[in-house]
Amino acid sequence: MEMPDPDARVISAKADIVRRLSAVVGKDALIHAPEELRAYECDALTAYRCPPLAVVLPSTTEEVSAVMAICHAARVPVVPRGAGTSLAGGSLPTADSVVIGVARMTEVLETSHDDRLIRVQTGRTNLSVTGAVEEDGFFYAPDPSSQLACAIAGNIAMNSGGAHCLKYGVTTNNLLGVTLVQMDGTVVELGGGHMDAAGLDLLGLVCGSEGQLGLVTEATLRILPKPEGARPVLIGFDSLEVAGACVADIIRAGVLPVAIEFMDRPCIRATDAFSGAGYPDCEALLIVEVEGAEAEIDQQLELICAIARRHDPVELRQSGSPEESARIWLGRKSAFGAMGQMADYICLDGTIPVSELPRVLRGTAELAESYGLKVANVFHAGDGNMHPLILYDANRPGDLAKAEDLGADILRLCVEAGGCLTGEHGVGIEKRDLMTAQFTGDDLEAQMRVKDVFDPDWLLNPAKVFPLAASASRRALAAE
Amino acid sequence: MEMPDPDARVISAKADIVRRLSAVVGKDALIHAPEELRAYECDALTAYRCPPLAVVLPSTTEEVSAVMAICHAARVPVVPRGAGTSLAGGSLPTADSVVIGVARMTEVLETSHDDRLIRVQTGRTNLSVTGAVEEDGFFYAPDPSSQLACAIAGNIAMNSGGAHCLKYGVTTNNLLGVTLVQMDGTVVELGGGHMDAAGLDLLGLVCGSEGQLGLVTEATLRILPKPEGARPVLIGFDSLEVAGACVADIIRAGVLPVAIEFMDRPCIRATDAFSGAGYPDCEALLIVEVEGAEAEIDQQLELICAIARRHDPVELRQSGSPEESARIWLGRKSAFGAMGQMADYICLDGTIPVSELPRVLRGTAELAESYGLKVANVFHAGDGNMHPLILYDANRPGDLAKAEDLGADILRLCVEAGGCLTGEHGVGIEKRDLMTAQFTGDDLEAQMRVKDVFDPDWLLNPAKVFPLAASASRRALAAE
Repeated sequence: MEMPDPDARVISAKADIVRRLSAVVGKDALIHAPEELRAYECDALTAYRCPPLAVVLPSTTEEVSAVMAICHAARVPVVPRGAGTSLAGGSLPTADSVVIGVARMTEVLETSHDDRLIRVQTGRTNLSVTGAVEEDGFFYAPDPSSQLACAIAGNIAMNSGGAHCLKYGVTTNNLLGVTLVQMDGTVVELGGGHMDAAGLDLLGLVCGSEGQLGLVTEATLRILPKPEGARPVLIGFDSLEVAGACVADIIRAGVLPVAIEFMDRPCIRATDAFSGAGYPDCEALLIVEVEGAEAEIDQQLELICAIARRHDPVELRQSGSPEESARIWLGRKSAFGAMGQMADYICLDGTIPVSELPRVLRGTAELAESYGLKVANVFHAGDGNMHPLILYDANRPGDLAKAEDLGADILRLCVEAGGCLTGEHGVGIEKRDLMTAQFTGDDLEAQMRVKDVFDPDWLLNPAKVFPLAASASRRALAAE
Repeated sequence: MEMPDPDARVISAKADIVRRLSAVVGKDALIHAPEELRAYECDALTAYRCPPLAVVLPSTTEEVSAVMAICHAARVPVVPRGAGTSLAGGSLPTADSVVIGVARMTEVLETSHDDRLIRVQTGRTNLSVTGAVEEDGFFYAPDPSSQLACAIAGNIAMNSGGAHCLKYGVTTNNLLGVTLVQMDGTVVELGGGHMDAAGLDLLGLVCGSEGQLGLVTEATLRILPKPEGARPVLIGFDSLEVAGACVADIIRAGVLPVAIEFMDRPCIRATDAFSGAGYPDCEALLIVEVEGAEAEIDQQLELICAIARRHDPVELRQSGSPEESARIWLGRKSAFGAMGQMADYICLDGTIPVSELPRVLRGTAELAESYGLKVANVFHAGDGNMHPLILYDANRPGDLAKAEDLGADILRLCVEAGGCLTGEHGVGIEKRDLMTAQFTGDDLEAQMRVKDVFDPDWLLNPAKVFPLAASASRRALAAE
């Protein structure tokens, strides 16, 4: 008996699933031509690429549910995708998967100023959530750097933060409820416009779960009244330790700035050369920003400057006008651009207890030296969210691999210091094999058994978050 | 062949488990004499009582682990107990269970002002966590009314709030990490002194899980710098709707008071008669308190009073001294005592979107009327956390059952209004059968399957949280 050609079988399976998906969402919402699939072969971790079987762009929760039910029945893996801005490969396709992108699901479903909430479809971008309420004097607090592009779906998947999160918390602190479509197409509502949840808090579990438990199609978000104004102060030090101590003293004094940004010398030099911001050439630079009414801003900045002066800063520059404020922020805001002009880089996001800042910065410098690579540090210091940028040359063979090894060592150092592998970018494929540095086998088994509950066939966002070795037997079952 | 007497078998099983527990924790930490077990037969939901098989009072995580491993091997259910202040029967024993009480585990294990955290054993009372850091100018924010007595273990189990939680969040927003002992004795660490967690957020899942997933023996808590001062204003209205609108306007204006407490006429009358606080006789009374430096307090109160004036209050009383502040709070703080003197009562804790306050208050009054019972309302209005007190007469046959039925109807009303069964007291045994008002069969199944992961034999805190009908087959397996 003649066996069918394996390629022919794959092609026929693909044709079959495409036909069934098309019946549900229509041809306009379905991409399967190889040349068009290229746009979906990677996210912002562009070093890794793989075109999927097909991409679906549904418009409603019902369509997402129907698509997932079809994939579930056919045992086709599903890769949820927001705006594709993940730095950790959180929405990297596999060749046998269907990508479900929420890019067309951008509607505002409800706003209530009295209840301080907005309900949106999760394809809406982060910044346009604020856009929908700012005329009425409100804003949505979490503000990842990619906020112009990134979708709420991805913010929820990665529990995203941003410069404001020192004061306002990260996504999980601003998320009231979600509509979750499970792998078999079941639609569940978790949380809502009220405080707390009865029974087990599945909302907290879903936030940050990187598409491993289901696809979030709608979200109820907390909105906050916009502060009257904001003003930064720039403080330079000739010692990392002293800058770290100053951060700790500010936090301890009971002022709660919206942002405490920290740059080290390599980052200061690069950004100043690029932007002409006029930063002092010193070991460490802090930008501390406070918000509120004018009188409140004055009072807070006075206290912050008094604390800074006790630490003998080499520079203490208060802003007297919106122009001066913009100039203080100019270098920081162009830091990633400046680095990108100098070299290729990997941006990490380990978190550490604030008191460990000096030790981890020193350890990072030593590791970089031993690898013969340069590392620049620019990060949210108030909550210990590090962002070491590892510079490398993509055209030099082996340099990317070396940079990745250094990155892994730096994240191990964060974990040793009592911290965590990822503050806001997520694990994705980038850090899946580093999870063993943070968790024991038992810890990982507990997490994977929770995934078993939501996705028993392991069809959702495959080969991410969990170390490949630890999840091998489960993924093998899925492939049967 | 003669069958052994079933009673004799129970007695011998009890003797056996007591002997094995005694070998681990010693006689001093083990209670099994029937007369001594009486102290553990109920918690603050005193209408339900059942003495357990035995009570263990361990001193360390290791002892808890050993005790749970013994119970697991013998298939003896375990009931975790903090300070026994649950209003929902969260630590009610069953006759075949061993109660593990953390009352002796009160040590401070670590404090770090730089990292703004404290690590404690979870038997420590809520107030004494603040006690351990207040000399250094810090406090622990969640403040349930029972804070003098209640343990951190129970706060975590129920995700407790308090009057301050409008500004500072509830337990889950102030909890950084836990040491969790699983039913088989395995000890796991979740979270820690750093921002966010990689992988699935099991910490968020454990907080509020009412002892269904494990026993929390140690906790890392966020501490905050103490504000310089605090001052309340008292505002009376002759309409519930107007008072509700005033709350919404305050929230919307961007002031964030630490507390907005709301009392209705039945509550105002009872508390004023009891305490002599001099409250006006009106439909609704608000106490709004703000915190900060003197100038900040003045500025916030000015704004709040301006908003209140736009709503034509019948009384607007600002505090000019600590004595006047105390007098404003006097009635509110004695509200539960005043009610207790008038009648027996059940205290509910449904939550609703703030905009639904007037509707839910009206609906509650109508329901109370139809049952022929009185309901007084005193609650945290800023975050929609209702506390209807249902008054009844424990000596009148059938009155408690009637009050419970009314309570269930009021909580159903909260859920219909887009709210939740419980804001801070938890489900326990009190609301387990009401869970079907909030969740579909699929929702409950998803929650129970997550419990299966942590406690496959359903030995932990039995017959709570989940409706008895829904969990029957799982509990039957456990009893095999």
